[in-house]
Amino acid sequence: MSKGLLVVVSGPSGAGKGTICKELLDRNPNINLSVSTTTRKPRNGELEGINYFFKERNTFEEMIDDDEFLEHAEVYGNYYGTPRSYAMDKINKGEDILLEIDIQGALQVKEKYPDGVFIFILPPSLKELKNRIIGRGSETEESLITRYGAAKAEMEFAFKYDYGVVNDTVEKATEKVEAILLAEKSRISRIKDIIKNIEEE
Amino acid sequence: MSKGLLVVVSGPSGAGKGTICKELLDRNPNINLSVSTTTRKPRNGELEGINYFFKERNTFEEMIDDDEFLEHAEVYGNYYGTPRSYAMDKINKGEDILLEIDIQGALQVKEKYPDGVFIFILPPSLKELKNRIIGRGSETEESLITRYGAAKAEMEFAFKYDYGVVNDTVEKATEKVEAILLAEKSRISRIKDIIKNIEEE
Repeated sequence: MSKGLLVVVSGPSGAGKGTICKELLDRNPNINLSVSTTTRKPRNGELEGINYFFKERNTFEEMIDDDEFLEHAEVYGNYYGTPRSYAMDKINKGEDILLEIDIQGALQVKEKYPDGVFIFILPPSLKELKNRIIGRGSETEESLITRYGAAKAEMEFAFKYDYGVVNDTVEKATEKVEAILLAEKSRISRIKDIIKNIEEE
Repeated sequence: MSKGLLVVVSGPSGAGKGTICKELLDRNPNINLSVSTTTRKPRNGELEGINYFFKERNTFEEMIDDDEFLEHAEVYGNYYGTPRSYAMDKINKGEDILLEIDIQGALQVKEKYPDGVFIFILPPSLKELKNRIIGRGSETEESLITRYGAAKAEMEFAFKYDYGVVNDTVEKATEKVEAILLAEKSRISRIKDIIKNIEEE
């Protein structure tokens, strides 16, 4: 049996990776969304193992020491991480797992699991990226400028990824991501067992 | 503008590369089929530039010396080759070109144009491959055994390719080839100009 794919979808904020991942999961219920581990306290309605795996700070730090994360970061005093065992369990069963993470996280995952499929979501233009960041509202003008500057700088990281998908429309971009997954399942390096089976049958 | 793809579809005889290529071209009229050059005499109804580019033997040999072929071979006293300029003209215009060639030819193309997309068509099983070779009829038992032995040995070359597509049904296999082409158009190494445009817009 072939292993499942570890699929990392990432990109600058405002490029629309969240929308594409949601559409991808809606259309492909067989793809598992990775559940993150966090030291943040559960919010109303959040469920253990569904929204997050909730851990105490010292437990999380022990997990870091034991290399139990594919990536992790500390944000505003809380830890967030992608547990390695959850992803590997799915992959070894031949199931695909999707990680929607930021660029720093994606680069950490690439170090630890280079066999992953790394997809960078691109805005159609920087102007459109700006509009989308503004469109989210609830931000001061200063923070908008900071976020836009950061997003613009993040574009350079695209070249660390395997694929770049322009998010012109959610549907077209999602179809491209689906094509990438189908193609990756036919990569020679991933189908050695299938070829062996054909030869032995 | 991004370059078009040079797509090489190859595989052991009997795996069904011809059927898949035909289906692919039927469904995607924008893909160009490469036209080979040959020293064989035109048969009834064959047209210059449509079925083949017909050349004299000395002209063909000059073309070999001038490195004008992506691959070439001599079969039963006639030369056959894939002209480089025809393929490159299409690619540079952003159009895709399909080469349906044998394994020896494919490996020559890979030397000369490693940016191509190399797809190996696999039979669902060796038993099925045998049936397909027999199903073609018009062969002596001895030549069947030779051809089956050759096809079996050719399976090992799959690992020189980028992708392996199992031809269980023509439709499913063609869909996989289409997904590979769509995915390849999103590979980071192929979309540098697109990213540059986004950043400059």
